[in-house]
Amino acid sequence: MTASTHPSLNVHRQQFPALANKAYFNFGGQGPMPQSAINAIQQAHHYMQQAGPFSGEVNRWVVQEGQQLREALAIELGIPASTLTLTEDVSIGCNIALWGLDWRSGDHLLLSDCEHPGIVAAAHEISRRFGVEVTVCPLMATLNQGDPVTVLADHLRPSTRLVIVSHILWNTGQVLPLREIMQLCHTAQATPVRVLVDAAQSVGMLPLDLDALDVDFYAFTGHKWLCGPAGVGGLYVSADARELLRPTFIGWRSITKNAMGHPTGWQPDGSRYEIATSDYALYSGLKAALGVHRSWGTGENRYRRILDLSQLLWQRLRDLPQVVCLRTAPPESGLVSFQIGDCTPATHERFVQALEQQGFLLRTILDPTCVRACVHYFTSEAEIEQLVAAIQNIGTL
Amino acid sequence: MTASTHPSLNVHRQQFPALANKAYFNFGGQGPMPQSAINAIQQAHHYMQQAGPFSGEVNRWVVQEGQQLREALAIELGIPASTLTLTEDVSIGCNIALWGLDWRSGDHLLLSDCEHPGIVAAAHEISRRFGVEVTVCPLMATLNQGDPVTVLADHLRPSTRLVIVSHILWNTGQVLPLREIMQLCHTAQATPVRVLVDAAQSVGMLPLDLDALDVDFYAFTGHKWLCGPAGVGGLYVSADARELLRPTFIGWRSITKNAMGHPTGWQPDGSRYEIATSDYALYSGLKAALGVHRSWGTGENRYRRILDLSQLLWQRLRDLPQVVCLRTAPPESGLVSFQIGDCTPATHERFVQALEQQGFLLRTILDPTCVRACVHYFTSEAEIEQLVAAIQNIGTL
Repeated sequence: MTASTHPSLNVHRQQFPALANKAYFNFGGQGPMPQSAINAIQQAHHYMQQAGPFSGEVNRWVVQEGQQLREALAIELGIPASTLTLTEDVSIGCNIALWGLDWRSGDHLLLSDCEHPGIVAAAHEISRRFGVEVTVCPLMATLNQGDPVTVLADHLRPSTRLVIVSHILWNTGQVLPLREIMQLCHTAQATPVRVLVDAAQSVGMLPLDLDALDVDFYAFTGHKWLCGPAGVGGLYVSADARELLRPTFIGWRSITKNAMGHPTGWQPDGSRYEIATSDYALYSGLKAALGVHRSWGTGENRYRRILDLSQLLWQRLRDLPQVVCLRTAPPESGLVSFQIGDCTPATHERFVQALEQQGFLLRTILDPTCVRACVHYFTSEAEIEQLVAAIQNIGTL
Repeated sequence: MTASTHPSLNVHRQQFPALANKAYFNFGGQGPMPQSAINAIQQAHHYMQQAGPFSGEVNRWVVQEGQQLREALAIELGIPASTLTLTEDVSIGCNIALWGLDWRSGDHLLLSDCEHPGIVAAAHEISRRFGVEVTVCPLMATLNQGDPVTVLADHLRPSTRLVIVSHILWNTGQVLPLREIMQLCHTAQATPVRVLVDAAQSVGMLPLDLDALDVDFYAFTGHKWLCGPAGVGGLYVSADARELLRPTFIGWRSITKNAMGHPTGWQPDGSRYEIATSDYALYSGLKAALGVHRSWGTGENRYRRILDLSQLLWQRLRDLPQVVCLRTAPPESGLVSFQIGDCTPATHERFVQALEQQGFLLRTILDPTCVRACVHYFTSEAEIEQLVAAIQNIGTL
């Protein structure tokens, strides 16, 4: 299969209503939902109203939907379903890992310099509450040269308890070598340093086998590259790391109960970190979205197609005189970040707004200042060519 | 308006598809959604796909929807919209209050004996982590005699930092005198004891003026008595209590940022306790549900109607020889709890299952062991009579 010949692309794209009236390049912000996912949500609401909404029958159905979703996601991630926690979003997953460790004053928490501001703020609150020292290591500079594993190794300390990195950096699109990072952190000192991975950009983009990578905590969402509804994601906690991680935000889903309904302990599996009532209709929606991707091809095939397309976009952008791509080699992911004209945030913002007016959806990034275009496996080459032509027409503003 | 003469009841009920094929008495578990709420969710999904899903336009719309929902809920609760945090459910709201206080070893946390098991488990984890002493005071026994305020007063200590009570006890339906409880806790000692109120059963049932009640933390959900979708609720934190309460689970919605996109502090209002991406379509759904209730009558009128109907149900149940109502006086809420036959959990469970088979939806409670029937303002008298007849027919199993 080459980048230009997948026969069913147009048919496949017709399943996504958001693709019909625009050229979409914001998959890293939110993926477009297939119609089948929207329909599944609607059908779930109708079913729950018809059979409940609160009834023995609906309660059994909710348990089943949750289990089916965990099993479908577990296949996508290469993990046992029992290690999965369903969450509302990536940040909840990161917070579960951050707040559940037994922090001691003097512990060290190491962040990359490309983590999402919400996670950075959470790490600093951990620091304030428990006297933990938070430092940042410069991975952004390894986009085109140097080795992120060496940088991380240089910043580990005997007191380091946790490292937070993204599998794919949301600003530059760099894919971090997770296997080597895990090996470093688990073997650098007598007590393994645990690693929390922000997987916002990797789940649904990369083919994954987390079990083999020896990951500790892997927090993701269904609404970006998996194209599910906003409001449902997950957290993988390895069976080993689970022993170290207490539940923090706690509700009826976290616990086991006795015959009086009183709490007796934690759920044995990943559901101990789940809290309470969610919109279960979203589980049906995300399951449907997963099915659409599988009907197109394996995770490996989808990723290869993404790379073909991001390379095409990167090459075309490099041909434009007013554009500088952040990467000097073809992208390793579906994220293509570039700078325009005088390279100020204001110019990038005006540029993205002008493109939105013309039906091209991209976003700005503030650090490093750039514009980010994402391609998914179902992006068409025609869209890429149209985007490049639109950028050429806009010039430098 | 009397219990029997509201002219538009049948028309009003037709807005709720769940009411068409059953007799529904589980409002305390989950309220039925009006069709307009289901439609609003669907329309929001369609809109977001058409205009995004991730775009400048959709981002502006999401901010607006959130603000409109906060304003609509603020009216319902009698608070400024700026004091409101949108959450996924009641438990998240309770956890925000529990984990955000500056706990010290030796502090005391007082719970009533009627709190939901998830909240009890969260309190015990606070105890374990910070060396806080958790004790329980017996409010269940004040259902028919005695004074909950006196019981609470007897259990306060100089070291008490937080009291957790429900505004309406989910098991017995008792309404606690919140004004008097707040007065007690805020004046019993030099430093006010803060009160976290589990409002799962009160929001959408009681007419509320929280500002006048001097409440600290009030955690609620939209999916029970407000009949909105599961997955969206809220937390009220008074402006005064906000000074004491740090954000714990933290994401991009919690923070302010500088020109580089780096975190600089907390949002000035209740949104500092919000975390990250949610299903914003649910905001449209809950707004629509609130509109349906307001079109029927004021909060005061709805509550009076609930009392008329719960008194009717309570009276009819008292006439049945195999039934014992927990309350010896007419209920103060829409929750009517009663025991059947030999009064064992197994009998109650069989009884509820038998009723579900016949299209009557109720639930069991384990402590105290009972069956709970809920009436809303739009419950029909015919449903109540049919339920009573069905219970009579089933006998004692």
